[in-house]
Amino acid sequence: MAGDLSQTVRALVFDVFGTVVDWRTCVAREAAPFLARHGLAVEPEAFADAWRREYVPAMAEVRSGRRGFVRLDVLHRENLVRALAGLGADVARIPGAELDALNLAWHRLDPWPDSREGLQRLKQRFIIAPLSNGNIRLMVDIAKRAGLPWDAILGAEVVRDYKPSPAVYLQTAEILGLAPAELCLVAAHNGDLAAARACGLSTAFVARPREHGPAQSTDLAAEQDWDVVAADFGELAQRFGC
Amino acid sequence: MAGDLSQTVRALVFDVFGTVVDWRTCVAREAAPFLARHGLAVEPEAFADAWRREYVPAMAEVRSGRRGFVRLDVLHRENLVRALAGLGADVARIPGAELDALNLAWHRLDPWPDSREGLQRLKQRFIIAPLSNGNIRLMVDIAKRAGLPWDAILGAEVVRDYKPSPAVYLQTAEILGLAPAELCLVAAHNGDLAAARACGLSTAFVARPREHGPAQSTDLAAEQDWDVVAADFGELAQRFGC
Repeated sequence: MAGDLSQTVRALVFDVFGTVVDWRTCVAREAAPFLARHGLAVEPEAFADAWRREYVPAMAEVRSGRRGFVRLDVLHRENLVRALAGLGADVARIPGAELDALNLAWHRLDPWPDSREGLQRLKQRFIIAPLSNGNIRLMVDIAKRAGLPWDAILGAEVVRDYKPSPAVYLQTAEILGLAPAELCLVAAHNGDLAAARACGLSTAFVARPREHGPAQSTDLAAEQDWDVVAADFGELAQRFGC
Repeated sequence: MAGDLSQTVRALVFDVFGTVVDWRTCVAREAAPFLARHGLAVEPEAFADAWRREYVPAMAEVRSGRRGFVRLDVLHRENLVRALAGLGADVARIPGAELDALNLAWHRLDPWPDSREGLQRLKQRFIIAPLSNGNIRLMVDIAKRAGLPWDAILGAEVVRDYKPSPAVYLQTAEILGLAPAELCLVAAHNGDLAAARACGLSTAFVARPREHGPAQSTDLAAEQDWDVVAADFGELAQRFGC
């Protein structure tokens, strides 16, 4: 199937958090000194999980239309306060500048070991771009630090809506001047791919079984017959003839 | 002044048509076989000029609010019909697919000889992006073909308005999380720089005295005390400490 697909597809767009970068390890690393300084008795990885748990409900406010579009940096900052309060921290006593600085942890996420080289190979033949809920500056900072060779930064902030709203997938195809099937979403999350497929996009699953740490129980394998299923970005590039 | 400026500025955004790429020579080259095939007795460069003359009035319809935002590919396609009609062509007899193909001439513009290397140097220290009226796909196609190493594709389509509307400059700074002065517009056009400066952006002028051919009479030199004035992108990079 990838043989035909590499003829149909013109651009690959990527989920980023979990698919391209390892957010959990990196947020934990960035948060550890902060947690120690404030005497918060929580494992850094558990703190990263707590912060991330606020992500979907915060975006749901925007997706539902109850709240106008605000970029993810703003939601992350609000979610940080919520996560800290949930751990019993007296957030009002923490200087705002310290919270602002910690919020930039999301701008310093490392890629999985195979991400960069796989993207470099795919870029030779396809347009490649993030299709992330992360905002443009956040994506730029990650890419510059990690050397990710995106052709453009697409996603939530360009469309002003959050995945899995259909508009994010469909408007991205339209911006690229492509029919939905000519655009392939690459993601480590079956739910993201299902939403993209419902819009007519092509789909590629790359397993990231440690995204949520050693005890991960979700998204360990493809749950539908995605157009491509690959173990890493190297195999993904190979399947697309790169 | 560039010494201080390289401390203040965090991102450089670039006018593209004329500043980064040589649109006139390339559109003429792309149009020449079409003009010959249809027996249109016009120099290819004069045809490029005629097509380009429709550019500002077409965008004015959007900037004024009389027309909702449409991307530049759409305006270029309409302007092509107008330019051909103005030359006396019987446009209705030309297959639409031929016009569509010629419209992509704007996606195949070559950079000036110094553009790519200058951008590569600036990218080491700054965020670099187009701030063009060209749409995202158009900018991506030019960049991939020419090897322009943009960190993101910003500009009219992201903001859904056309330069020199203030929103294009100000919202681009906001997307990048920057104060206006931290963003520097690089352009070969004094008018673009004046609009950017009115919004508080930093400004850099690079002369492109052959943009309009050997008889060019406008934008031959800086008309205000722009923060940087450079002869080419090499000098621009040097002035920014790259």
